[in-house]
Parts: sequence; C-alpha cells; structure tokens
Amino acid sequence: MSQLPVVAAAMPGEMDKPLISRCLVDSDGSLAEAPSEAPRVGILGSGDFARSLATRLVCSGFSVVVGSRNPKRSAGLFPNAVQVTFQEEAVSSPDVIFVAVYREHYSSLCGLSDQLTGKILVDVSNPTEQEHLRHHESNAEYLASLFPTCTVVKAFNVISAWTLQSGPRDGNRQVPVCGNQPEAKRVVSEMAHAMGFMPMDMGSLASAREVEALPLRLLPGWKVPTLLALGLFVCFYAYNFVRDVLEPYVQEGKNRFYKLPVSVVNTTLPCVAYVLLSLVYLPGVLAAALQLQRGTKYRRFPDWLDHWLQHRKQIGLLSFFCAALHALYSFCLPLRRSHRYELVNLALKQVLANKSHLWVEEEVWRMEIYLSLGVLALGTLSLLAVTSLPSIANSLNWREFNFVQSTLGFVALVLSTLHTLTYGWTRAFEESCYKFYLPPTFTLTLLVPCVVILAKGLFLLPCLSRRLARIRRGWEKGSALKFTPPTDNAPVEKTSHV
Amino acid sequence: MSQLPVVAAAMPGEMDKPLISRCLVDSDGSLAEAPSEAPRVGILGSGDFARSLATRLVCSGFSVVVGSRNPKRSAGLFPNAVQVTFQEEAVSSPDVIFVAVYREHYSSLCGLSDQLTGKILVDVSNPTEQEHLRHHESNAEYLASLFPTCTVVKAFNVISAWTLQSGPRDGNRQVPVCGNQPEAKRVVSEMAHAMGFMPMDMGSLASAREVEALPLRLLPGWKVPTLLALGLFVCFYAYNFVRDVLEPYVQEGKNRFYKLPVSVVNTTLPCVAYVLLSLVYLPGVLAAALQLQRGTKYRRFPDWLDHWLQHRKQIGLLSFFCAALHALYSFCLPLRRSHRYELVNLALKQVLANKSHLWVEEEVWRMEIYLSLGVLALGTLSLLAVTSLPSIANSLNWREFNFVQSTLGFVALVLSTLHTLTYGWTRAFEESCYKFYLPPTFTLTLLVPCVVILAKGLFLLPCLSRRLARIRRGWEKGSALKFTPPTDNAPVEKTSHV
Amino acid sequence: MSQLPVVAAAMPGEMDKPLISRCLVDSDGSLAEAPSEAPRVGILGSGDFARSLATRLVCSGFSVVVGSRNPKRSAGLFPNAVQVTFQEEAVSSPDVIFVAVYREHYSSLCGLSDQLTGKILVDVSNPTEQEHLRHHESNAEYLASLFPTCTVVKAFNVISAWTLQSGPRDGNRQVPVCGNQPEAKRVVSEMAHAMGFMPMDMGSLASAREVEALPLRLLPGWKVPTLLALGLFVCFYAYNFVRDVLEPYVQEGKNRFYKLPVSVVNTTLPCVAYVLLSLVYLPGVLAAALQLQRGTKYRRFPDWLDHWLQHRKQIGLLSFFCAALHALYSFCLPLRRSHRYELVNLALKQVLANKSHLWVEEEVWRMEIYLSLGVLALGTLSLLAVTSLPSIANSLNWREFNFVQSTLGFVALVLSTLHTLTYGWTRAFEESCYKFYLPPTFTLTLLVPCVVILAKGLFLLPCLSRRLARIRRGWEKGSALKFTPPTDNAPVEKTSHV
Repeated sequence: MSQLPVVAAAMPGEMDKPLISRCLVDSDGSLAEAPSEAPRVGILGSGDFARSLATRLVCSGFSVVVGSRNPKRSAGLFPNAVQVTFQEEAVSSPDVIFVAVYREHYSSLCGLSDQLTGKILVDVSNPTEQEHLRHHESNAEYLASLFPTCTVVKAFNVISAWTLQSGPRDGNRQVPVCGNQPEAKRVVSEMAHAMGFMPMDMGSLASAREVEALPLRLLPGWKVPTLLALGLFVCFYAYNFVRDVLEPYVQEGKNRFYKLPVSVVNTTLPCVAYVLLSLVYLPGVLAAALQLQRGTKYRRFPDWLDHWLQHRKQIGLLSFFCAALHALYSFCLPLRRSHRYELVNLALKQVLANKSHLWVEEEVWRMEIYLSLGVLALGTLSLLAVTSLPSIANSLNWREFNFVQSTLGFVALVLSTLHTLTYGWTRAFEESCYKFYLPPTFTLTLLVPCVVILAKGLFLLPCLSRRLARIRRGWEKGSALKFTPPTDNAPVEKTSHV
Repeated sequence: MSQLPVVAAAMPGEMDKPLISRCLVDSDGSLAEAPSEAPRVGILGSGDFARSLATRLVCSGFSVVVGSRNPKRSAGLFPNAVQVTFQEEAVSSPDVIFVAVYREHYSSLCGLSDQLTGKILVDVSNPTEQEHLRHHESNAEYLASLFPTCTVVKAFNVISAWTLQSGPRDGNRQVPVCGNQPEAKRVVSEMAHAMGFMPMDMGSLASAREVEALPLRLLPGWKVPTLLALGLFVCFYAYNFVRDVLEPYVQEGKNRFYKLPVSVVNTTLPCVAYVLLSLVYLPGVLAAALQLQRGTKYRRFPDWLDHWLQHRKQIGLLSFFCAALHALYSFCLPLRRSHRYELVNLALKQVLANKSHLWVEEEVWRMEIYLSLGVLALGTLSLLAVTSLPSIANSLNWREFNFVQSTLGFVALVLSTLHTLTYGWTRAFEESCYKFYLPPTFTLTLLVPCVVILAKGLFLLPCLSRRLARIRRGWEKGSALKFTPPTDNAPVEKTSHV
Repeated sequence: MSQLPVVAAAMPGEMDKPLISRCLVDSDGSLAEAPSEAPRVGILGSGDFARSLATRLVCSGFSVVVGSRNPKRSAGLFPNAVQVTFQEEAVSSPDVIFVAVYREHYSSLCGLSDQLTGKILVDVSNPTEQEHLRHHESNAEYLASLFPTCTVVKAFNVISAWTLQSGPRDGNRQVPVCGNQPEAKRVVSEMAHAMGFMPMDMGSLASAREVEALPLRLLPGWKVPTLLALGLFVCFYAYNFVRDVLEPYVQEGKNRFYKLPVSVVNTTLPCVAYVLLSLVYLPGVLAAALQLQRGTKYRRFPDWLDHWLQHRKQIGLLSFFCAALHALYSFCLPLRRSHRYELVNLALKQVLANKSHLWVEEEVWRMEIYLSLGVLALGTLSLLAVTSLPSIANSLNWREFNFVQSTLGFVALVLSTLHTLTYGWTRAFEESCYKFYLPPTFTLTLLVPCVVILAKGLFLLPCLSRRLARIRRGWEKGSALKFTPPTDNAPVEKTSHV
C-alpha cells in the first residue's frame, strides 16, 4: 500500500483499529518497507530548480529519482536521499515526472517517449519575456504535443527555487495547476498540498499560457497609479516653475533658479499627495452616486470606475509616499545655505532700518497652525499606510479595516484640506499672488478634495444614507423584493479605501 | 466513490497499488466520471458573498449549484462552472447547503423545508450591530428553530467575500465552526480545510452568538491603551498650558498663545510617549515582584495585572507613535515664523548691546547631548515597532523576540530617561522654573520610569534573579517538589514586552 | 473506526456513497460515538506548555488525557474537555504521549515504563543554553535511552505555548520532526498537520540536538553584518574625530569638542550607510565576474562569497537604518543651540563689517542639489526596506522582487553617489581640506561604490551581458551542450539584492 504523506488511507482489514494505533502496531514491519512505501516521483533536469524541487520533495516524504545525462557529475549536487541516475532509468518507475528543462530542449527528451507513455508530466518551466511573445503556444501545450501519450499538467512555475528551499510562506503559497485531465490534476494538487502549497485549479491546459504569464507580471497594479502620480508631478512642477521662478525672472529680472532642486519640488509634492489622496475617495463617491441614481447595486459599474476602485490602495500609498517626501524636504529647508543667508540678510535689513523688534502676529499664527495640521495629517496617513501592509490588513476584520481606511482616511483628507487652507490663508484673494494671471497652486488642488468632502457630507443626510444602506443590502428600486436577497460580508468595500 | 478534494481515500480492491499509479491507470475512466465525482454543495442566495463562495468552492474542486428565485437573471453573475437553478431544484441533491441570505428572509425559505430535511445548513450570515443587540438569539439558532429537521452549522461568517475571492492569507485563515452535531461540524471543517482555511471548533450552536460577534469587534485591544494615551495627553497639555502660556500671561502680561498649536503640543507629546513606555515595563516588574512574594508562578495574577500584561504591545506602539510625532514636531520648530523672528531679534539685541560674540558653552553641550540621545532613543524604539509587525514577530523564535522586546526595549527606556535628564539639566533645582509653584513637567514624568529601572536593577541581584528563575521553572516555596514539574516554552513572556 | 481530524478515511462498505452524504446519513449514530471516535493522545506534565498543547489538541478534534502526580490540583488549569488523571491511568490508553516535563525529571517517569511499552513518546522539551552546552546527548536521545521499548519522536519544541494558544501563523508554522521510526514520525506529522502546523522531516533522532538548538539561535544572520556596521562606525568616527575636532584643537587651539555628540556622529553615519550599501552590491559583481571567468555557474562560489551573498538583505537594512538616523541627525542640526549662536554671530560679523547683503551662489546651489539628492536616495532606500518585509516580499513574484531590489537598489546607490559627490563638490582638490594630510572622509567612501557602479556598467556591454545570460541559463564554456540543461526559476537571485 502506498500513499501520499499527510493523507491517510485506511487499509481494508483494519478499519476497526484507530489509525494511530495501526501505525504503531506494524511499525517494525513498515520500517523496513518505508523506502518502498514512499510515493516515488521523477525529475528530469539537474539545474537549480530541479535541485530545490528534489530537496523539497524529499522533505515532504517523497522518494525522488533524478534523470540526468551525466548522473555522476550531477549526483553531487543533490541531497543524499535523492537517487540520481540516467534518464531512461529514472523515468521507468515513477508515475509522476517533473520536467525541469528549458523549452528548447524538450525535443531532446523524445527518445524517452516509450517509457513515458501513460505517465503524468509536470511542466514547471517559465518562458522568458521574449519567448512568451514569440511562441503562441504555451510551453506546457508544446510539451503535450511532443508526448501525446502522456498527461501534461502545468504547475509550480510560479514557485521559485528559493521558495522551494526555504519553505512556502503566506502570499507565495498558491500554486496554479492546469491540465486536461482531472485525475492527473488531482494527483499533482495533492503533491502540492503535501509540499505545503495551496493548489488552485486553473482549468484546462489551454490556460497554461496565462499561468506562464504570471511570473512575467511586473507590479501591474502599480502602473497606472505611478503614471498618474508622475503626470501630476510634471504638471504641478511646470506650473510652480512658471509662477515661482520664471515670473520673477521675466518681470523683475530676479535669479531664483536655485529654487529648482528643493523649493519648487517641495511646493509640488504636497499638491501631488493631496490630489492623489482625494482621488482615493472620489471613486467611492461616484460609485455611491451611481448606485443611488440607478437604485440598485446589481448593475456593474463602468469599467473605468471598476479599475479605479481597485487601484485605490496603490493611489493611497503613493499619496503617503509623496506626503512623506514633502515632510523630508520641508525639514531640509532650514538646512539650506539660502535659508541661512536670508536670515542674516533679514537681520541686517532690520539693523539698517534701525528697527529693534520684528514680529507679525498673523504670520506667526498661520505658520504654527499650518505646521501642526501638517504633522497630524502625516501621522494619520502613516496609520493608513501601516494598516495596508498585508500582514496587518489580514489580521483585521472587515469592520476594523473599514474604520481605519474609511474613517481615518477621511480624517486625513479633512486634515490635509485644513493644512492647505491655512497654508493659503488669504492669499487666494490677493492680487499680487496671481502671477502671469495664474492663481496660486493651492487653490487648484482644493477643487477635487472639496467636492469629495461635500459629497461625503451629502451622503450623511438621513434620506440619502438610508436609501444607500438599503441598496447595499440588496434592495432595488421598483422591485417588490419577492426574491431572496443575499447576504453580504461587505466584499467590495474591503478594497474600498486607500 | 466520491471524496473531498486533497483528501485521498483508497479503494478497497486497489490497496496494493500506489495511489498515484491508481489515479493514472483509471484516468480515462475517471475523466468521464469526474463531474459526478466532485462533492456537490448548494448555495441559497445570489449576493456578493454567494458569488465569491461559489467561485472559491469551484476552485477548490467542488461542484456547486446555486438556488435563486430568478435563476435567469442570477446566472450571469456566477462563473460558468456553477449551475444556477430554482431553489427547489438546487437543494434537492447536495447534502450541504450554504444559506447566504439575510436573517429577515430566513422565513421565506420555509417552503423548502421538506427538501431540506436531514441536510446540513451552513449559516454564513453576519448581523449588523443593531441586529446583534436587538436579537438575543443568534442567526444560526434562529435558522435552526425554523428548520428543526436540519443540522445547522455556523461557519465562514468571519470570512469576507473579498477573502474568499483572493484566497485565504495568514491571519484571516481561521474559520470558527460551531454546531450541535460533531459529524456535521467535521464535514464543514473538511470543506473549510479544502478551501484553504483553518477550521476552529468553537463547540455547540450556543456559541453562535459569540461567533457572530467576532466580525463586529472594533480593535478591542486598542480601546483602553488609546484612552490612556488620550487621557495622559489632555492632562499634560493642560499642565503645560498653565506653565508655558497662562503663567507668562497672568504674571507678566505676555501673549504666548501662539505656542498652543506647536510648542505646547511638542512639550506634551514626549511626556506621553515616555510615561507610556514606562507603563509597558511596569506590569512585568509588578508580576515578578508578585511571583517573588508568593514564591510560585501557579497562582493567577489579579485581573487588572493580567489585562495590563496583555496590552503592553499596544501601549508600546502608542508610545512609539507619540515619540515619532514628537520628532516631527521638533523638526518643524525651525520652520516656524516665530523661530525666525526670535533669531533676528536676538541678533538685533546683540547689535544694540554692542556684543560681538555669543556663545554659552553649557547650553551648547546640553542641547547636543540631549538631541543625540533623543535620536538614538527613537531609533531603538523604531526597531521595537518594526519587530511588532506580525510578519516579523512570527519569524522570530522566542529568544530573539525576547531579546528585541525586552533587552532593546529596556535600552530605549534608559535612553529616553537620559534624554529627559539632559533636557532638564539643572532646571529641577532652579526656583524660577517652578511657575505657580508647579514643578517642571519633565520632573513629573521621571517618576514611573525611574521606579521601573531601579526595580529591574534590583531583580538582577543574584539572590533575587536566581529565586525568580527557579520560580519560573516551576519551583514553589515550601513544596518538596515531588510531583513532575512542567516544561515551559516560555508562553507568558512572548507577549511580555512592548 | 477512528481517524485523524481533517483526514478522511472511507469505510469499506460505503465506497459508493459520497463522503459528505455518509457523514450525514449516520450522523445520529455517530453523534453518540463521537467522543470515542476522536483519536486519543496523552500528555505528561501540567505546565504552561502542557496546558496550551492540551487546548490546541482539543480544538483540533483530539481527545486528550493528561497525567499528573496531583490530578485534583492540576485539573483546574486545563479546559473542561481535557481529562486529568494520575500518570499511570493517563498513559494506558493513548498510543501517542507527549512528554512535557523537564529533562531532569525524565527519570521520575521510569516507573511508567511498562505501561509505555510500544508507544510513541513525543519529546517537546527545550534545553536552556547551559544545558545544551553541558549535555552532548540531546534531550530526546536521553529520553530514548531511558525508554528503550518506546519510539521517541522529537517535535513541537520550536513552538511556543503562546503560538499553540493563539493558533499558528505564517513563519512559525513549520515544525521540525525527527525520529528513527518513519511510521511514528508520520503519525506525529499528521497530528502537527491537523493542528495547523507544517511538519518538516529532519531525519533520524540523531538530528534532535540540532533541532533542540533551533530555539536557542539569536538572530544568527545579523551577527556579522551588525559587527561590520559597528566596526565601520568606530573607524569612521575616529577618523572624523581626528579631522574635525583634534586638528582644530592641536593646530589652532580651538575647542570643538561640543561636536562629538551630534556633528561628528552625523558625518560618520552617512559614510557607514553608503559603504554598507555598496557592500550589498559588491558580492553580486564578484559572483558575476567569477562566473564569467570560470565560464560556468555549476562550480560553487568560495564560502566567504556564499556567506556574503546570503547576508545582503541584513547589510542593506543596516544601511537603511544608518541612512535614516543620518536624516534624523541632520534635521536636528538647526535645533542645536550652537547653530543659533553661529547664525547670530554671522549676522553680527556682517553688521560689523558693514556689509549689507550676504549671498554665495555656488554654496547655495551645492546645498540645494545635495539635499534634494539625499532625500531622493533615502526615499528610494525606504522602498527597498519596505519590500524586505516578509509579508510584502512573499507577495511579489521573482521579477517584481528583482526589479525592486536590483534596479531600484542600484538607483539608490547612484543617487547616494551623486549625493556624496555634490556634498564634496571641489573639496577633494582643495589643500586646506587635507587636515593632518588626511583626505576628506567622503573621498574615502567613494572608492567601493564607484568600483561597483563601473563594474555594473561593464556587465551591460553586449559581449559580457550575453555571455553572462547564457551562463546563467546553464551554458558552459567548452561543453558541446549535449546534456539536458536545466530550467531555472532564478533561485540564487531571490536573495541577491538588499
């Protein structure tokens, strides 16, 4: 009797005995049989992946035989418990064989065709990006076409040799498995399970191309948010450059180009951070408005809104990153040589003007309030960022996650708005601040956040909030609500904020 | 033969063949049977949760049938592999049926009573907070009372539709299961296990109310520590307000109210951070003292001490948060307009007094040492905060965790004390610093930390430390130690520090 | 029929019935049998670990009996579902018995020898460091020598009572299991699996000493990198002390000792951070050069290089820590009293010299560029640090991890180099900067990073990069490449950067 580790199969004659006791009773006998009892798997190839795979399989209780063209040379690379032999010999006894060779060498295995008949071949390969674009057929389908008498299963390609060695951790535990043969998939899934992974059925072998594309993915969720942040940065930087550097140069001939590396960057970053933060909450407002207007939650949002809703976490984190950089740049301001010179020159001017005391109460107050609000806004944002860490987000229930991301996030938005307003103070109404007829930057950034805050306020009105709550519980406009409404464990909202 | 995925059951006639081989041999046959072999489960409801549940079940190898009042309309919402039909039809064949409808619509299912007889109903619902307070009976018990011929199991309510879709991650892997029927619980537990979750037996259906309260919990461990921090903040803020703002106004008529947003906050935050940090280590000292006095570790600590010991992590993190805000506020100080004015006015004063060089060696030294110690204390605290992240804390063994939290934490406390002492310098002994006869704030904050540091020092004395080590290994005063003393893998201590 | 929880074994007569249905059908019958069906395990000992173990076992569906010398007294410490009785009685019925007592009391169990014959004893004990050094024989081997008729399995010692209570989390899920008897190991492994842990087969009982050493480990990966960082700090601090404090004192009699706590530290920290960062990328360059020279990747690197490659993450994190402290110290500079005095004295000097405007354009530009680059370098490094968190690193595929750690890391190195160069400006060429004939510190630190950047640039040349790519895909110099080359899922690189 042979079996997968951690999966118990009872023997027919021993059904009445407890499993543990059975193991114990025939322990002496099975000790001798043990090696032959362990399920046997084969591996073709002797590269890093083959080595890590062999090690992991042995640790998980399998008996492993590796097929190599040069067994003597390869044997030293594998753990002792692994049998390394010629390919022909290696594939003869196991029923599952891992093919750990590059696509271009699949055809070199054709000589083993007869021995492989009826066996399960596990394709673990990953194409490079060029290969993936060049071939329309996935590696696994190509392998299947070379070995029509075998059952090919695509699996383990998302797992790195490193993960195999160090043991699976959360987040890289999932192993997509696909193939045309359910039983073969089940066998490979059970092996994955025994090795500590979480197999995910991805359907037939036609999905192999998709599965092979997974490890080629490069932070897909970050692309649009990053481009958005960069775009905003470029626009605001150009705007601030015109107002703060070009205008004084053109109008008064003053050379302020030294402001480019720090000062202009530091007036640009908070604009980007602030607009991004409001863009985290805008799609939620739009979605709520759409649901209110449609009177149901059962119609899909338009695609752009759906994508936007799904990227809020990334937009929020970029907002926090810009805000943190803004803080660092601000703390650098008094370190600048220009700051020192300005202070000394101010003192000189006072001395020359024979003034004995300098104090503008309004300026003092503006600055104190605005700095304090800025620190508080950054502190609140940092709490949001920390709860976005997978290990923390996963330990919160939905209500807690929602409280932090939605409630605290809104507090951060309000604090940022107050920070911006006290920074601007009365400058939006002073003519001298409209350089080249361009309004001060902060007035531009206030637009979206104020709309979001007003809309959020509107949705708190009892008539709207009650209607919205009913819609989110499954109620529909015009329906007599005869059919069973569903339970929601608040699925959409989990990603809803920052 | 039917079976749960990832759980292998061997067929009686094939005991002598390896499992993998068996799968392979009858692979052609089982391919045709595959759909009928997959265990079949039913779902009532077509909301977000029902949809995510159906997707997850299909991915985990189950065959799913969904019952809806309007199958045509609902079918589009589910993956293709899911069969969507009328409720009566859906519940006829599966033995396990998930009830994914709101409590208020449970009664609408009563028409299905006959078809449901003898089946397992899984209640996945979550009450809202109002509902939870209104009904004394849990949703699951209410369902059980409506369908007395069914076995009701409460499960999966803590899992959000989002988690179901994206796959379980660590931290949200645990699924509490409760019910009156062990076999039914076992079946549902196995399904949870197959779906990648970790079932936790919570006992009989009487626990359902407790299980339903889990998702309503709102950061319970943070409540008391946050209130404590806020309380300390208010007290110290008021104290500092009286000393720094009110006293100059009353005694000398000076207007220092501009100090409220930044300066007073920034003298308050370090006090809060420092006192909170000492409160992390005080309960450990008290516990050790109690064990020394009692001469045993087998008597329970009083409840207040137990709770305090369990909240040290939260108190420590709040201390770090206040310390970090203190740093941000401090870095903002030279950005203030008032700072600029004071500097210029100081220069003016020097010019008017005809002084050519300003330098107070003692003041310079005090400030340099005090700033350096502050940065080091914050750096040490940040290491503690980082190792409190679940994903890092879980990768440390107990000795490493203890080293970081206990040893480094104590270093941080000592550094903070030195930071406070150099900040205070000789001011505790200057009469002019006792405004309204109130001592300087820093003298007040030194009280608890100094007690903790002294006590920790005392416990290092050989006589006490040896006795304490013996007690913690199971020794008891006055016992002849005849009975078997237990092994400790240091359980209490794991949460013991920060 | 008895069975482990979550592992289903089918009954012979019921093969044709689905498992779920079977459970349901005989649910009434099995309800009564349930308690007797649960597999029964024994525990000797009543300490914290024994208590947590019992609780966990009960939660996982086992029936637990605890043996104590004083059952009456101990009973109150265990959950109700646990049966607490005398040792003789407790060990009689279960086949697996956990020994949760200290090594020094193993011999007190010898009276139970007869009852224990043929059973599996699980040794869960951890020696203290002193014990581990004193005894050459592991606790488990000592236990085996006392009970030659039993099968001893070492397991669960790495799990703390705390983890047992709170449920396993990622990172502390792995349980090394070792023993001389495969069947016994399998039984204990299955129990571990049922309790939510991931058993790892560590071979025979001879490995027990190694397994017992695991919980005694104290951040082994951090030792060398931390010593390296400390060594660099001491050297650079001494060097800066000589140049910045000693030279002015000796040559000009100026007292600059007040610079010791902040200023000298703050010129030392960036040197350490910068050199450490370059040491993260140097071993990768050396490894590539070695592979190019050897023309193969199949020869092992020398041990020192291997260790260096494996410690890059720690070196990178220490570099980030120093860089962050450098930022904090820098932000403290304008807070110092000495800074204030210097500013005022500068203003006084200008007044006395009757100068009305102070401005040095070059100095202004140097400072602005240098600060801006510093902030950007720190921002980039912080992204690297965040992606080193286990929970984030695990959610990235290899390409993403490589992009962040390798590409972004190199960007950080280039930014730091530019930061250092603009800080230095022309000072490397000014005679006055060579105090005591010692070159300015920044020139020393530039050495290694520039070598790394140049080498990285060289490897981008088409001839070298193509050859390197071929080597990493398995190509070997002088081989006709007849044998099967292996697939790599990029194992070495996963740890390769920061």
